[in-house]
Amino acid sequence: MTYCVAIAVDEGMIFCSDSLTNAGVDQVATYSKMFRFGNDGDKRFVILTAGNLATTQATIAKIKKDIKLNSPENLLNMRSIEDAADYVGDISRVQQEKHTVEGRSFEASFIIGGQIPDNKHEIILVYPEGNHITTSKDTPYLQIGESKYGKPILDRILTPGLDLDTCGMCALVSMDSTMRSNLSVGPPIELLIYETDSYILEKPHRFEADSDFLRDVKRSWDARLKEAFRQMPPLTWAANWDRSVRERNGAS
Amino acid sequence: MTYCVAIAVDEGMIFCSDSLTNAGVDQVATYSKMFRFGNDGDKRFVILTAGNLATTQATIAKIKKDIKLNSPENLLNMRSIEDAADYVGDISRVQQEKHTVEGRSFEASFIIGGQIPDNKHEIILVYPEGNHITTSKDTPYLQIGESKYGKPILDRILTPGLDLDTCGMCALVSMDSTMRSNLSVGPPIELLIYETDSYILEKPHRFEADSDFLRDVKRSWDARLKEAFRQMPPLTWAANWDRSVRERNGAS
Repeated sequence: MTYCVAIAVDEGMIFCSDSLTNAGVDQVATYSKMFRFGNDGDKRFVILTAGNLATTQATIAKIKKDIKLNSPENLLNMRSIEDAADYVGDISRVQQEKHTVEGRSFEASFIIGGQIPDNKHEIILVYPEGNHITTSKDTPYLQIGESKYGKPILDRILTPGLDLDTCGMCALVSMDSTMRSNLSVGPPIELLIYETDSYILEKPHRFEADSDFLRDVKRSWDARLKEAFRQMPPLTWAANWDRSVRERNGAS
Repeated sequence: MTYCVAIAVDEGMIFCSDSLTNAGVDQVATYSKMFRFGNDGDKRFVILTAGNLATTQATIAKIKKDIKLNSPENLLNMRSIEDAADYVGDISRVQQEKHTVEGRSFEASFIIGGQIPDNKHEIILVYPEGNHITTSKDTPYLQIGESKYGKPILDRILTPGLDLDTCGMCALVSMDSTMRSNLSVGPPIELLIYETDSYILEKPHRFEADSDFLRDVKRSWDARLKEAFRQMPPLTWAANWDRSVRERNGAS
């Protein structure tokens, strides 16, 4: 399984991905699911991948080959992130169709994000069918893979005005919740922070399984969550209060 | 969709369920998914239901009928919660098989909990196939329906030694996270608290959509979570620290 999340706020973008792939619990391997394209100072792209590993590897290989051969249609020729998403979706669909047999699917999803000079930075989720969606003010993030466990914290914390460090921490806590609930999502965790208009993509922070920081995030969030919980209003009082209001209003 | 959660700790049990059912977003209705059986001072059972509404209603109807007719096999004759779970599973399976047609399933899941005099209280999850599982010290809760969004908070907070009020609040926060992420899970929310060895099942607290308490839980948890987040260690410092440790150790 996989969990990847990307966040786009005014200040820039966050990309975060796990690195486990599995075909059954006894066939687990480590592959990075985060790929950078382009050159600093010019167009910069990040692609996150989820789904069938053969499809995602073939798609990434084709993208690299097109760049290397300077094909008429290649990632670094794209005029917008939407065009890039169309391009990635087309490649992915061709790869899937090539190998599909009755009853077996080789589906893959992608998140592509980046910035092209004179355009705003943007992230887009590319579905297995090749169509895609972007973010909104209310939902400034996209997820692929095992997305449910890590969604509530994103919904509660993220807003377009948030600073990049807080967004990065939010991505890590979302990843931590997912790892805790799904064994097949796991480290190394890669985290990449892009500052808008910088056109610079540094190497992602890579947190290994034994990362002191990852352990600190886990421990610290655990402790703070428990503390936040202890401060919640007492249940019995409030429940009775609600009931008494209802009874006063004549409802059963 | 449905979300139900039951928690069993040393002090007793918590049952919490939403009340929306839907067959498509334009066919939404409100049905309680929490059912109480038995008499105060003697065996007491609670059943939570998820899945196909026809199957769950037929199952509950059969359980009630068997009690009314005082059938040789009825819920109030059961000698253990396991026996009761077997009984519920058998009824559910018969109901499903009766109506199954090619390619359509009418699956349902149940959580049955309760206490029989001279036995410990217990909760059991009954799968559509009729087999079942109970809790453990590490996992003192069971969920049916849309379970993923509300799981992380349960994993982080619940331990067998926790008091019932805190467990009840944890169930409500888990429900709140689920409602926020899945539109088809919604109020009224029912919450029932059972104190071990009391053999008393009060009417569940019922929180309507306009419940002040439910709104307070939501608002208050939101604020506390954001505050907890603000207190997390700064990301950049920690990430650099991890990296410098790695570099000092000679890794790339």
